[in-house]
Amino acid sequence: MQETRLDIARIRAARQAIAPIFLDTPLYRCEALEPGLGCAVSLKLETVNPIRSFKARGTEIIASDLAASGQRAVVCASAGNLGQALAWSGRSRGLDVTVVASRSAPAVKLERIRALGASLELVDGDYDTACARAAAIARHRGIRRVEDSVDVETCDGAATIGMELVSGAHRFDAVLVALGTGALASGVGYAVKTLAPEIEVICVQPAGAPAMTRSWHERRVITTDTTDTIADGVAGRIPNPDALWDLLVVADDAVLVQESSIIAGMRMLLDHAGLVVEPSAALGIAAILEDRERFAGRHVATILCGSNVDMDAYHSWVGATPVGAVAVDVRDPYQG
Amino acid sequence: MQETRLDIARIRAARQAIAPIFLDTPLYRCEALEPGLGCAVSLKLETVNPIRSFKARGTEIIASDLAASGQRAVVCASAGNLGQALAWSGRSRGLDVTVVASRSAPAVKLERIRALGASLELVDGDYDTACARAAAIARHRGIRRVEDSVDVETCDGAATIGMELVSGAHRFDAVLVALGTGALASGVGYAVKTLAPEIEVICVQPAGAPAMTRSWHERRVITTDTTDTIADGVAGRIPNPDALWDLLVVADDAVLVQESSIIAGMRMLLDHAGLVVEPSAALGIAAILEDRERFAGRHVATILCGSNVDMDAYHSWVGATPVGAVAVDVRDPYQG
Repeated sequence: MQETRLDIARIRAARQAIAPIFLDTPLYRCEALEPGLGCAVSLKLETVNPIRSFKARGTEIIASDLAASGQRAVVCASAGNLGQALAWSGRSRGLDVTVVASRSAPAVKLERIRALGASLELVDGDYDTACARAAAIARHRGIRRVEDSVDVETCDGAATIGMELVSGAHRFDAVLVALGTGALASGVGYAVKTLAPEIEVICVQPAGAPAMTRSWHERRVITTDTTDTIADGVAGRIPNPDALWDLLVVADDAVLVQESSIIAGMRMLLDHAGLVVEPSAALGIAAILEDRERFAGRHVATILCGSNVDMDAYHSWVGATPVGAVAVDVRDPYQG
Repeated sequence: MQETRLDIARIRAARQAIAPIFLDTPLYRCEALEPGLGCAVSLKLETVNPIRSFKARGTEIIASDLAASGQRAVVCASAGNLGQALAWSGRSRGLDVTVVASRSAPAVKLERIRALGASLELVDGDYDTACARAAAIARHRGIRRVEDSVDVETCDGAATIGMELVSGAHRFDAVLVALGTGALASGVGYAVKTLAPEIEVICVQPAGAPAMTRSWHERRVITTDTTDTIADGVAGRIPNPDALWDLLVVADDAVLVQESSIIAGMRMLLDHAGLVVEPSAALGIAAILEDRERFAGRHVATILCGSNVDMDAYHSWVGATPVGAVAVDVRDPYQG
C-alpha cells in the first residue's frame, strides 16, 4: 500500500485517548434486512452514544491533546455532528469550544451543540461557508481550528472503527462507508486495507453532493457549485487534496446513489432493524439497493454513522407511510 | 441479603457461555431526555443485537448447557422475545427448537422466530396458555422446557446486565427495570444489590398487567384473570412463586404505570434519543414521567430491554403525530 497520512501504530495508541463509550460499538449481522437486500449484511452502530454519531472518536483525540498541551479554546466548522462531538469532548476537558455551522443545518444538531455548552455561530451559506468562517475565527483568536479530514486525527478516530470491523467475529467481503469530507472513509479504509486488505472498501456519496466521488474517479480535486441532498452530513462542495490522496490509496471504489435510495435505506433500517438513522447513515444500504448484483451472496458491512435527524423531516421521509407508497427508483424488495 | 436462587459466582462463570454480541451493551447518559424528565438518565441498550432483546443472555447459557450434555431438542413458551432468543441460541448449536406462542403476539416476533429456524406452534389464548402447552409438549416428547423466570438461567442471564450496570463509569441512584415474569427484574436486582446495594432497584409493570407487582406488595402470589396492556412482553397473569421470592429479596419497590405513560415514554425515546423500543422497554421512562418528584435530581438508569414491535402499531402509538397531540395522563414535558 502506498503511503498515506495515517499510521496504524499511531491509531492504536490514539484509542487510549477515546472515552470507552465511543469504542467497541455494536457490530452484528442483521438477518431481517437480508431478504430485501440479497446479501448478508452486518451493521456497525455509531448511533448509540451520547452524541449519536462516530465523530467523537476523532474529537476525543484532539481535545485530549489540546488539554495536555495547556490550550484552552478550539473552533470548528461543522455540518452538525463534528460540532456536537467537539463540544462533548471539550466540555469534559474544560475547553472553550466554538462551532460554526450553516443556519440551514438540522435544528436538532444545532440544539445539541448549544446544549453541550459550545458557542454556536451560524452562517448564511453551507458547510464550506462555515469552514471559511471557522478559519477566520481561528486566525483572529489565535486558537486551534479543527477541520474534518484535514486534521488527521479526524481520520485516525474513524480508523478505530475500521480496526473494530476487522477484529469482529465475521469476515466481510466488502465494507460500505459514507463519503463526505473523506475523514470517515479514509480512516476506515486505511485500517481495513492495512489489517484485512482482501476486504473491498466502497465509498458511497449522494449523487446530489458528488464532489469527492468525482474527484476520486478523476484523481484530481473537482469542486461543485452547489449540493442538493437530504444527507446533510456529507454535503461538501470542496474536497481536501490530502484527504483525496489518502482515499485514492485506500478505497477500491466510490459510487453515487439517488435520494430515493437513501430514503428507501432509511425506511428499511427502521422497518426491519428498528433503527433510526440520519440520511448519511443509510448510504451503504442505498448502494446495495442500487446494485444488488454486485453484492449478491456476499457479506457486506456498513457503518451507521449517525442518527441526528430532525424528526419532522424523518417522519416525512420514512414515517407512517406504508412501504411502497413513496416513489423510489429501486424496486421495493418487500413488495415481491 | 437473604438467600435467593441466584449466585454471583455462578453468574460470573455463566458470562463465558454467552456470545459476545449480547454482552457489554451500550450504557450511556442521554442528556437530551433529561429536560423532559427532571433527572439524569442513563440508558442500557439491549436492542442492538441480532434478536433485538436481552433474552439471549439467558438462552445462551441454557443452549450451551444442553449442547454440552448432548441434548438435541428444547421447547419454550414465549411472549415473542424468549422464543427468538432460544431459536438463535439453539440454531448455532444444532438444537431442534420449538416455540409456543399466542396467536395474538406481535407478528414481527412470530416471523422472526420462524426465520431463525424454530418450529412455531400458535395457541389461542395468552402467554400463560402458551406456557401450559409448552409444558405438555415437553412431557410428551421428553425434552427440556425453558420457562422464563422459573429456569434460573433466565435470571442469571439478566443478572449479567446488572453486573454491567454497576461496573460502568457512572454511579446510579436508582435502576428502573421492566417487570413481567420477574426474570429480568430479579436477575438485574440481584446483581445490583450484591455489587452496589446502595442503588435503589425499582420494578415497573403496566397497570393493565399487575399480577407480579400486586404479589410483591402483598408478599404472596396473586393472579389475575386477564391482562390489558400494549406491553405484550410483560403481560403475564400467573406469577411464579420462586421468582416472586427472589424479587422480594432484591427489589426495593414495584410500581404500576398507565398505558398513556408507556406511549409517552416510547415517544420521548424516539424524539429525543432516536431509539425505537417496544412498549415493555419504555416502562422505566413511564415510571419517571408518573413520579417526577421521586426522581428529581437523581441519576437513574433504565434498561431498554427490547425493540421487537410491529411497525404499524408503533406508528399508531408514536409515529408522525406531533408530541402533545395524543391525550396522555402526564403533562408533556416539552410543552412547558
